[in-house]
Amino acid sequence: MTQLTVTPDTAGITDVPGFEAAGVACDIRENHDLKRLDLALLFSLRACTAAGTFTKNAVKAAPVLLCQKHLAHGGPFHGIIANSGNANACTGAEGLRNAQATAQRAAASLNLKPTSFFVCSTGRIGQPLPLPRLLKGLERAVSEKGRTPVHGTRSADAILTSDTRAKTVTVSFTYDGKKHFVSGMAKGAGMIQPNMATMLAFLATDFSVPRSFLQKTLSEAVAGTFNCITVDGDMSTNDTVLVLANGHSGVSVGEKSPRELRVLFAEAVWKACEVLADKIVSDGEKITKVVEVKVDGAASAEDAEKVARAIGNSLLVKSSWYGDDPNWGRLADAAGYAGAKLIESKLDILYNDTPVMTAGKPHAELKSRWKEIVKARRFAITLNLHLGKASFRLLATDLTEAYVNYNKSE
Amino acid sequence: MTQLTVTPDTAGITDVPGFEAAGVACDIRENHDLKRLDLALLFSLRACTAAGTFTKNAVKAAPVLLCQKHLAHGGPFHGIIANSGNANACTGAEGLRNAQATAQRAAASLNLKPTSFFVCSTGRIGQPLPLPRLLKGLERAVSEKGRTPVHGTRSADAILTSDTRAKTVTVSFTYDGKKHFVSGMAKGAGMIQPNMATMLAFLATDFSVPRSFLQKTLSEAVAGTFNCITVDGDMSTNDTVLVLANGHSGVSVGEKSPRELRVLFAEAVWKACEVLADKIVSDGEKITKVVEVKVDGAASAEDAEKVARAIGNSLLVKSSWYGDDPNWGRLADAAGYAGAKLIESKLDILYNDTPVMTAGKPHAELKSRWKEIVKARRFAITLNLHLGKASFRLLATDLTEAYVNYNKSE
Repeated sequence: MTQLTVTPDTAGITDVPGFEAAGVACDIRENHDLKRLDLALLFSLRACTAAGTFTKNAVKAAPVLLCQKHLAHGGPFHGIIANSGNANACTGAEGLRNAQATAQRAAASLNLKPTSFFVCSTGRIGQPLPLPRLLKGLERAVSEKGRTPVHGTRSADAILTSDTRAKTVTVSFTYDGKKHFVSGMAKGAGMIQPNMATMLAFLATDFSVPRSFLQKTLSEAVAGTFNCITVDGDMSTNDTVLVLANGHSGVSVGEKSPRELRVLFAEAVWKACEVLADKIVSDGEKITKVVEVKVDGAASAEDAEKVARAIGNSLLVKSSWYGDDPNWGRLADAAGYAGAKLIESKLDILYNDTPVMTAGKPHAELKSRWKEIVKARRFAITLNLHLGKASFRLLATDLTEAYVNYNKSE
Repeated sequence: MTQLTVTPDTAGITDVPGFEAAGVACDIRENHDLKRLDLALLFSLRACTAAGTFTKNAVKAAPVLLCQKHLAHGGPFHGIIANSGNANACTGAEGLRNAQATAQRAAASLNLKPTSFFVCSTGRIGQPLPLPRLLKGLERAVSEKGRTPVHGTRSADAILTSDTRAKTVTVSFTYDGKKHFVSGMAKGAGMIQPNMATMLAFLATDFSVPRSFLQKTLSEAVAGTFNCITVDGDMSTNDTVLVLANGHSGVSVGEKSPRELRVLFAEAVWKACEVLADKIVSDGEKITKVVEVKVDGAASAEDAEKVARAIGNSLLVKSSWYGDDPNWGRLADAAGYAGAKLIESKLDILYNDTPVMTAGKPHAELKSRWKEIVKARRFAITLNLHLGKASFRLLATDLTEAYVNYNKSE
């Protein structure tokens, strides 16, 4: 079976044949940081199919509403315009007009239709977009865009907010003698508990993929990756994942393709999402730990998820992780209030492979080993409820004094 | 109509005729703080009816299980034994034996039945109780108990953990020429989002009250007071509210009493709970602000509560309160992900009486006034969803760097 080659920290989107990118500085932030890249353009001259998943927040930013509308329109699609520094959220009708004007300017500059562009924003909520500056920057992006790794890298940098580093990945595999690509870029940091976060992620592939198959593949991957991470439990108004498939390779993948190809493609999309989701958690705002919370043996998938999220979002649990304190009592407490079926006398808890509690009975003699485990930057906690077969895995972070300090004002 | 007299910071339980109390130091904490009061005994020689509400956590501490069993047994009841420093939670069968042994020792010392005593614990989870020391302390409490304010005060001090001050209240009113009392004591601080918190609250009254009426009155009061507060969103394994009615006044109150008396009694119980709940929030671990989150105009009571809790438990919202930052975008974001019906274009938000957003449109010109409001130690946020008539009011706190530091290890 063909193997996937997974390369993190690449140029990202421009690794996929047929895709161009640009990242420019157009002075979007309130602090007028003139050198900071804040507008990304991703572009395919060849028409693409597209799929997307969006925040389930009832308060959706204007660009989310526009993306949903364009996606429903069905394409063909040619690109994504994404700015950082301003979320264009809670900006009412003006916000929607500004998002539309952005798509219109790209379309006019490139002689395409406005509906062929997605528009995404991330940053401060409730401030009007500085549209004239953004549109000026967009024109520069159109003229500067290109296919080199530097172009890709600059686009990945331009969408960052409180992120400390760019997040890119390229997954490739050879099928039928031909090398194919799924590449992506993302930003994360705070307000991260995607259901479908202030996170954005953009993927591109050189396959030709029918719309419905592309959406199904993306939705499944997002459910198992981006939607299984939490930094602070806050779900953003702007969360968006988009994938563009430009067919540059001349090879199609869809429901009727050979099973091997379908599986390879789905795995490549999943892997790209998984690497980017992991990068988002690992670069969460002011975090010092990444903790994998695995819940097994739950009566239902919903119960497994509830328990994992109660633990991953508990302030007391997160504070203890920050302090290298193997405070399993707080784990049991959070599991108990998750609203899932749970019987204390059946509950197993482990730090990595070291038992903490078996069938409700603590192993106090192992305390020194727990302490060693939780000192690491990354470790796992497993709970087995012994009530069924359902599982859930959540990637979570600690909560630090620096997070609170960082977020006490914008 | 008769008025209630509400006096906070009293002796508490011993203000009610017929109730005795004691607070003793019996070395329950791991750090062997020998001078710290850590065991309270509340006692009525006259037989009491009782009612209680308990944590809905699936992981219930042993004393909670014992209280539920004794309450179901039906009484008569004579008292409450409560220790701090050790929650006797996640301690398995040994924990339950220890709680039972505590009730048995009290019963033997006072020539009563074990089922006539409630046993409560608060403190560290997952440590076995130092039972011999506790029982020795209990015998001292039995011999030292008395009716003076000092006895009441010492009992209120003995149940504290990370609280910085004792929490007591006495509500009294005159009915038919006779003065009646509802007094209470509580502890709170961390792991506070009661549904029915590591909170304990004990109330006493000198009315004679039938069990079912007492339970109904207590449950209604708890639902509107203790269950409407949050410090950190963590629901404890030990939360317990108990009320004892000793009939010392010779006056009964129940379903068939005159409406005025029923209403007065229910109001007195509610008021006592409200004052204690407010004290718990105001003394939340390392907090600097108390924020009243009011949600009006929701389509349902559940929706109103979801929105209030999403706001009151959002790390980003709580961090901004700490920073005196009127970050209404985070309020709108949290309201949006609460899982309630919400239409952005109908949403009003106010800081105290100053509008932030009306029908989805922000009033940026009022920013300096918002800033003044959120500088206060206490302020209100009101959201009107304009979708119905349901409301919910939550008392919440900010999240501070000191909270994270305090809880990073036990």
